[in-house]
Amino acid sequence: MTAPDTFDRLIQPRSIAVIGASSNAASVGGQALALLTEFSFHGGVYPVNPKYKTLKDRPCYPDVLSAPKPCDLALIAVSAPQVPAAIEQCGQAGIPFAVVLTAGFQELGKPGLKLQQELEASIDKSGVRVVGPNCIGLLNRKADIRCGFGATMASREAASSPGPLAMVTQSGGFGMSMAGLADDAGLGCSYIVSTGNETDVSALELLSYFLERPDIEAALAYIEGIHDGRQLLELGKKALRLGKPVLLWRVGDTPAGRKAAVSHTGRLTADETLFRLTVREGGFIPIDDVDDLVDVASLIHGGKRARGRRIGIVTLSGGAGVLMADLCERNDLEVSETSQDTLSRLKAHAPGNASLSNPMDVLSSAYYDDEYASYNRLIAEALSAPDFDQLIVRSPPIPNAPPWRWAEGFAAAVSASRKPVALLWGNGRRSREILDLFPRWSIPCFSSPRRAVRALAGWCDFSVKAERFSARSGPGPRPIEALPLPLPVGATSTLGERESKAVLASYGIRVLEGVLLGEAEIEALRSPPTAFPVAVKIESADIPHKTEAGAVRLGISDMTSLKAAAREVIAAARRFQPGARIDGLCIQPMLSGTELIAGAVSDEQYGPVVLIGLGGIFAEALGDVTHRLAPFDFAEARSMIEELRGRAVLDSFRGRLPSDVDAVTDTLHRLSWLISDHRERIVEIDINPLFVGAAGEGAIAADALVVLRKAPKAQP
Amino acid sequence: MTAPDTFDRLIQPRSIAVIGASSNAASVGGQALALLTEFSFHGGVYPVNPKYKTLKDRPCYPDVLSAPKPCDLALIAVSAPQVPAAIEQCGQAGIPFAVVLTAGFQELGKPGLKLQQELEASIDKSGVRVVGPNCIGLLNRKADIRCGFGATMASREAASSPGPLAMVTQSGGFGMSMAGLADDAGLGCSYIVSTGNETDVSALELLSYFLERPDIEAALAYIEGIHDGRQLLELGKKALRLGKPVLLWRVGDTPAGRKAAVSHTGRLTADETLFRLTVREGGFIPIDDVDDLVDVASLIHGGKRARGRRIGIVTLSGGAGVLMADLCERNDLEVSETSQDTLSRLKAHAPGNASLSNPMDVLSSAYYDDEYASYNRLIAEALSAPDFDQLIVRSPPIPNAPPWRWAEGFAAAVSASRKPVALLWGNGRRSREILDLFPRWSIPCFSSPRRAVRALAGWCDFSVKAERFSARSGPGPRPIEALPLPLPVGATSTLGERESKAVLASYGIRVLEGVLLGEAEIEALRSPPTAFPVAVKIESADIPHKTEAGAVRLGISDMTSLKAAAREVIAAARRFQPGARIDGLCIQPMLSGTELIAGAVSDEQYGPVVLIGLGGIFAEALGDVTHRLAPFDFAEARSMIEELRGRAVLDSFRGRLPSDVDAVTDTLHRLSWLISDHRERIVEIDINPLFVGAAGEGAIAADALVVLRKAPKAQP
Repeated sequence: MTAPDTFDRLIQPRSIAVIGASSNAASVGGQALALLTEFSFHGGVYPVNPKYKTLKDRPCYPDVLSAPKPCDLALIAVSAPQVPAAIEQCGQAGIPFAVVLTAGFQELGKPGLKLQQELEASIDKSGVRVVGPNCIGLLNRKADIRCGFGATMASREAASSPGPLAMVTQSGGFGMSMAGLADDAGLGCSYIVSTGNETDVSALELLSYFLERPDIEAALAYIEGIHDGRQLLELGKKALRLGKPVLLWRVGDTPAGRKAAVSHTGRLTADETLFRLTVREGGFIPIDDVDDLVDVASLIHGGKRARGRRIGIVTLSGGAGVLMADLCERNDLEVSETSQDTLSRLKAHAPGNASLSNPMDVLSSAYYDDEYASYNRLIAEALSAPDFDQLIVRSPPIPNAPPWRWAEGFAAAVSASRKPVALLWGNGRRSREILDLFPRWSIPCFSSPRRAVRALAGWCDFSVKAERFSARSGPGPRPIEALPLPLPVGATSTLGERESKAVLASYGIRVLEGVLLGEAEIEALRSPPTAFPVAVKIESADIPHKTEAGAVRLGISDMTSLKAAAREVIAAARRFQPGARIDGLCIQPMLSGTELIAGAVSDEQYGPVVLIGLGGIFAEALGDVTHRLAPFDFAEARSMIEELRGRAVLDSFRGRLPSDVDAVTDTLHRLSWLISDHRERIVEIDINPLFVGAAGEGAIAADALVVLRKAPKAQP
Repeated sequence: MTAPDTFDRLIQPRSIAVIGASSNAASVGGQALALLTEFSFHGGVYPVNPKYKTLKDRPCYPDVLSAPKPCDLALIAVSAPQVPAAIEQCGQAGIPFAVVLTAGFQELGKPGLKLQQELEASIDKSGVRVVGPNCIGLLNRKADIRCGFGATMASREAASSPGPLAMVTQSGGFGMSMAGLADDAGLGCSYIVSTGNETDVSALELLSYFLERPDIEAALAYIEGIHDGRQLLELGKKALRLGKPVLLWRVGDTPAGRKAAVSHTGRLTADETLFRLTVREGGFIPIDDVDDLVDVASLIHGGKRARGRRIGIVTLSGGAGVLMADLCERNDLEVSETSQDTLSRLKAHAPGNASLSNPMDVLSSAYYDDEYASYNRLIAEALSAPDFDQLIVRSPPIPNAPPWRWAEGFAAAVSASRKPVALLWGNGRRSREILDLFPRWSIPCFSSPRRAVRALAGWCDFSVKAERFSARSGPGPRPIEALPLPLPVGATSTLGERESKAVLASYGIRVLEGVLLGEAEIEALRSPPTAFPVAVKIESADIPHKTEAGAVRLGISDMTSLKAAAREVIAAARRFQPGARIDGLCIQPMLSGTELIAGAVSDEQYGPVVLIGLGGIFAEALGDVTHRLAPFDFAEARSMIEELRGRAVLDSFRGRLPSDVDAVTDTLHRLSWLISDHRERIVEIDINPLFVGAAGEGAIAADALVVLRKAPKAQP
């Protein structure tokens, strides 16, 4: 059979076979059958087990081939050695989906290896799409279909409060309990799938599917490891395109190590970095607590998107204003300045001594008499002001009993605006009734300022990314047309320094040209080929790390030293790698300026990436490096530099002139196109150091290393 | 009258005068009177206002002198210009305390200045201890005494749930609402004082008082600015000594700027740094959200203290275990290894396939039949194991209705142990009844893993500090006896490099000795006074920043260059500061090694402080510097180095040998005693750079600057 192109029949099966059904209520097969028969699933349920004639007053079938048709899903609960055969039978029976609850495969390590191989073979052969193994199943809470086992799935509330979320979780138990907490906040999940070992169907595939469902506003992922960077990248783009975020809770480390990289750049661009970069640039909202889930989901459910990062803070207490401003800044929301025009409009609704610049502290006492109606007028005015993209509002003291006129007026003001508003509740939880109103009005309400601001910031970040994604047609104008690489004939693997620099130069990146001379030519020299002081380096594609090889001498100031250095460098290179092909010695002028490193990697999974960092040992010791997926525009290149923690070394500093940041930006911009145009041919580019001079003096690659793919693919 | 030595009568007054009482229920004076007469205060209430004969069916007095005695407290609500006279009258009437609710003093800036001065004078003259002005008053919720005004103070619940906390807040409104949230968590405040402008009584004084009350377990401070570092330091020590933490929520920035410092060290040791350092080393738990307050307070209330940072994680879900381990590490709790002995004990209570190394994942299914009684046995075993100082336990699925046998068994296990245990609740909030049990059992219960771990970490940090504080008699053995400073006769202000180095050397810190020569002596030289390459620097106490003055030349390798450099340096120094006293030129060998900076400051308020950082422009650009209050022991000095973000530059790195970290530690240790012994004489010490060689090669101060106090105080 052929694989279906959606998962509709997986999550909404017409009939379900339970392979390994049992009369033992404590067994997995027994639980699975009970969950399907004791709740409200109305489709066909076909127990399969040769040991029984009937189970739960239904006919029990000896094998799945003898069960009725059509059957959309098989739950597999037989012992691990029997699983592969069961899957093959599903294929023969034309069942498109199976969920394998049984454990005992690759998660056991070596002892599970043989069965794992059989499992994989059976999936390939049968064409069945398989969820699991080693999972607790899936739950369609909208239709109350419970395919799985375990205490949480059997609980009274497991199918209550279906809502606009879908959850895909690599940890079944924890995922179920998160779903319960989302319910408490009135934001339930309609679908929950536990993916277990992900031998076939991956969490990313399912997330991608759920985003496309019209009944889903956001997907939630609890992830312990991601194996397919490309799929993650595509999911991130889809989320932006559809305007539906993936709330991503990731724990643990990426299990997949990365091959030891040839260049420095390679080492700084490990899987973990690429993962984070992809999450940051795609339609993901990273969360790391159940609180985050509930909080961000309540904002998504409000349905309003911020168009920028500017936030207005409205409060009746100066103290709350200060602390919220602190929090907003820490979370990259901009506590924006208020225009004169807006200030004068706000003034009409505030007491004379109110402080109306942002954060707006309008003094509780002034509104004491009118149940804060004018506070609501002020809020409405702030919402309509062009100065703010979103608002956070602190509640006034609220009476203990209805009528809650302030709350009603506030809800009216909020619903009249398209901007997100978070309410910061300051009245304790005693008046439960009123607290229950806000979710009904789709007003996100928080008692913790930190949670309010974090959630606003996460949602704002997604909204701004989605807006930019839909506005943008591409990565902006090229700095240069795509050009063929000036490669030596038959070049493979690592290029020498001069060859590497030629590649950079072909895309307009400034490189420090040296003079290449043979050993004998240097011995015969009478004057330096370039003004002293100079550097002498080995030129050999076989020795990519010249410093490690001891094949570099710096700061040479006279002819005697130069000749001695040349001899030493050659000797060191020969010692370091006997038989290395040596093309000669490169003599370069010594440069000054601030030392940076720049580089690019074309990752098999994530594609082309560019990085910039502080140079020397500090890049490595402090990890002060920023990355971007390539290609990108000039502004994006600039933002990479601005994000460096040690950014200040490029400013006017201790009497030095400010550095030529424009030139560094231009270098990164060009590098991003170079690696993008030639991603199939180039694996890594390493510029170390990149010297940057004072403004106007430019940036120049003093050393460079280009690593090619050993077996070049065809150009796309 | 003389000031009382406790605030007992302030928070528990026998009688209260309301100066500026009014029949207008909306006015501050009207509200203050109503709050005292309409709730359950049983002492005397004496309205004072010449306009009325009676108010609220009580005699109203024309002035406070005519009111009955004894009277412990006056609430002052008259207009700002009348406040100083009212305070003076309180003094004459023998009233020890006043709370000034009126605003309109220094918070107005310049327009309030005159009244502020009158206010201060009246306080000095009267001897009355004054809270405020510009505050909302104070609340003794134990006795339901409401001294103040505003909607929150009048609310039904303002006096409910007094508990083991006392709150001092610089923001009245926000403080009151925080108190309400603490109530919701069953951890109410017994006393709340809003301190307003703090013209007299400071938040720190009140906090110090509350810590000493036997009915208080912890104090809570909401602080916008601290003006007295010394008091903060003392409060931090008292909190450690008494084992009662101050939960410190600080917002905004310190308003007080610090004088432009002479040295680099001075610039890196601003008020903000010293504030943080003091908080970190004292008995404070920094919080920055209402959630933190509630969470940490619930642990404090549990009454159990961790003796170290090791935490055991017990869970029935692998996913939860991984994420909690992540969280613990991020919060400096140690997910410790489990000993073989403990592992074998745990084994008796777990299914065979459970993973018993920490985090312990013991698989829900195995306990399905016995209502998780053996899960409780496992927890009790883990609690009695010497491997863990505290535990975090994830709840199993709990039935929807009683009996909750698991919960009862868990509570029994927890109460039998002296270690803190946090329960991570995974069952949603539907079973409210059971959730209400945990606080009654004093078991801190969380649904958010992040909140659970943050709270455990905060409380653990305090507990460990308090334990260490009580174990420690002093800062450990001295590296050297206290010695007089080898100062030139009449030395004031900035010392020259050689004089500065002599001070360091007197405490056993290695310094790079140079040769001091006059201009003419250098011209006459025939060979270098120290082997090439050398550095030439100006020697002048008037030019502390030699590099800025252009009065340093590095890397000189021959006699001609040396003489030229000497002439240039002299000329540059004369240009930079005409008239500077020049003692000659210092010629030093060039050093290699890793460049650090070290320094010390004797702050007027916080006392002696030592710092270490990465050298060169990186120290400044990256701010990679750590500080400690001095003096300290060798281990503490070592921990300063370990905390550097760029710590890795001292490791074996890119083929370099590991640096001599012991020597740097020794330098810091000595520096801490030098600055402590001579805190009255030395303002700042700056070692920049401090070169550190490979292990065994030592650390050496290549340049140094000591700044003396201009008018030296008497030695203590």
